[in-house]
Amino acid sequence: MITLETQGSFAIGGTTVTHDGEFSMQRFLEPEGQTAYGDHAYVFYQKPVNARKFPIIFQHGGAQSKRTWETTPDGRDGFQNIFLRKGYSVYLIDQPRIGEAGLSTEAADAQNPYAQNPLYADKTLFMLCRLGVFPELFPNVQVANDAETLNQFQRSWTPYTGKLDDNLCAKVLAQLFDKVGESILVTHSMGGSIGWRTPFHTKNVKAIVAFEPGGTPFVFPENELPESIPTTYAPVAAQAEEVPLEKFKKLTQMPIILYYGDNIASKQTNVIGPDKWRSEMAMARKFVETINRHGGRAELVHLPDIGIFGNTHFLMSDLNNEEIANLMENWLKQQNLA
Amino acid sequence: MITLETQGSFAIGGTTVTHDGEFSMQRFLEPEGQTAYGDHAYVFYQKPVNARKFPIIFQHGGAQSKRTWETTPDGRDGFQNIFLRKGYSVYLIDQPRIGEAGLSTEAADAQNPYAQNPLYADKTLFMLCRLGVFPELFPNVQVANDAETLNQFQRSWTPYTGKLDDNLCAKVLAQLFDKVGESILVTHSMGGSIGWRTPFHTKNVKAIVAFEPGGTPFVFPENELPESIPTTYAPVAAQAEEVPLEKFKKLTQMPIILYYGDNIASKQTNVIGPDKWRSEMAMARKFVETINRHGGRAELVHLPDIGIFGNTHFLMSDLNNEEIANLMENWLKQQNLA
Repeated sequence: MITLETQGSFAIGGTTVTHDGEFSMQRFLEPEGQTAYGDHAYVFYQKPVNARKFPIIFQHGGAQSKRTWETTPDGRDGFQNIFLRKGYSVYLIDQPRIGEAGLSTEAADAQNPYAQNPLYADKTLFMLCRLGVFPELFPNVQVANDAETLNQFQRSWTPYTGKLDDNLCAKVLAQLFDKVGESILVTHSMGGSIGWRTPFHTKNVKAIVAFEPGGTPFVFPENELPESIPTTYAPVAAQAEEVPLEKFKKLTQMPIILYYGDNIASKQTNVIGPDKWRSEMAMARKFVETINRHGGRAELVHLPDIGIFGNTHFLMSDLNNEEIANLMENWLKQQNLA
Repeated sequence: MITLETQGSFAIGGTTVTHDGEFSMQRFLEPEGQTAYGDHAYVFYQKPVNARKFPIIFQHGGAQSKRTWETTPDGRDGFQNIFLRKGYSVYLIDQPRIGEAGLSTEAADAQNPYAQNPLYADKTLFMLCRLGVFPELFPNVQVANDAETLNQFQRSWTPYTGKLDDNLCAKVLAQLFDKVGESILVTHSMGGSIGWRTPFHTKNVKAIVAFEPGGTPFVFPENELPESIPTTYAPVAAQAEEVPLEKFKKLTQMPIILYYGDNIASKQTNVIGPDKWRSEMAMARKFVETINRHGGRAELVHLPDIGIFGNTHFLMSDLNNEEIANLMENWLKQQNLA
């Protein structure tokens, strides 16, 4: 049972662009003189009764939506329900230019396969998310091995409807933090890059919990870019990008934790998922070291190192997601944020 | 306060299509030999404690998503919360090929402006939804006259990510009815056409409540197509389509009610919204007559005729939406379905 004080949805942020020409009632279906709205995020929020002090704002990853945090592919509670039951207000977003926030003032990149239909990528997604080597699951993987679970997993994606822009997404997410007040930011995968940039634009990020950040650049101060970490398949190697030191130092102002799951290789291999995430986790360690060298409080937890095995890229949906949620909440308690 | 027994989300229905060629680990980002998933609906459901017997399944209209039924543009409760508070389980969907159900096995029609970004249509949408004659609201309109409300209205749309297909959507919606069990179907606008086709594929539609159906064809039995109802602006005239009599007669098996709001013209005019909806409502009357001639129980309520004024095309979000919800619930009670 979940008792809500309230729930609702709204659009946050966004821009407009107006077409050349003059609007005419006779040609009212034509674009001339009309304005396009776009680039906002869609937000669905739920506040339980007697909510804890700090809400949690959830930022999904690439080609995903707020579904990331909802019911798991095998039909159990996801982080939305788990954290509501723990007493947190939850804010789930569809980032600008995806899902129910599909309006964009810039068309999608025609070269981006994740901005088109049909999206032929079942094997790519299965392997990059470290379910296994298609069609075989890894032996210890925390995923239910039935056809409907895998069907739900494959249907959880949704294409971009506009150009990908992490800085735009971060600015809009910061507007949500300004509206909601001091809150905890939880990111997944490519949402990590949006998360690192959010404190550049708002003071209200009390902590960042990043589940397997990767797939977009980690940020480093100017002149502190680390060496790259090659992968067997070059396009999926971890990326890094310079930002001004002044901006980077915002990330030293709050506690940050990064979690990575299992089946990540310890050395180069031709198994795609384990190899890609070897590169990402190694870059993430350099990111954490750099934050701490500048006075911050970041840490990285590789779950097998603390005895938690079998997690995929979707830790929040894995069979042990309650355990992962408890781990996260214990960390929040240690930071006096629970 | 809303006390939920449970809530969750899932994908329902859908198809797959596999690309030519053979998948290769070395070219794992290429489409060859990979399968695309798509054409499912996204479903978010909430069950209050002690839920009423029949859930309500909500089908949105064109270029919309489940947002239609959520918080209103001026920040009040929408039908989602209103009917939860009344004790109904609510199922909100994003129909196939839009919103969080963006994956499609067929690309969108390149000629459809509502399947592209940027979408230059603020004046079109304002007027077709009968808020007024852009930028002036109709004098009696049930819409808050402030900039943020209109901003939220304009940001409530989202583009199609695949080809529009009412029959596909109806089949998927019918799969949801088969999964959930006997339920009440509520449709809006272009969702009406999906709604009329849903009972062709399931026995579980206990009633249909259609808010301003239009924008896609009303169905009629073969050889019973009515004459068209011209509009000043031909592209927005009401449409009608033949279906086999055997299918049409499914619509005689459950009570059906259609609601239309205010500022619908009684004769041809060059004011776009009122003229378009004059055509749609006239066609809707013929649809209702045809259902009843074949032994059904359909009715059409033009709200000003019963003393309710100022409603736009978005009756479920208008300032008097609680009154509209009560009207609908009273009708359900009369049908012994509440």
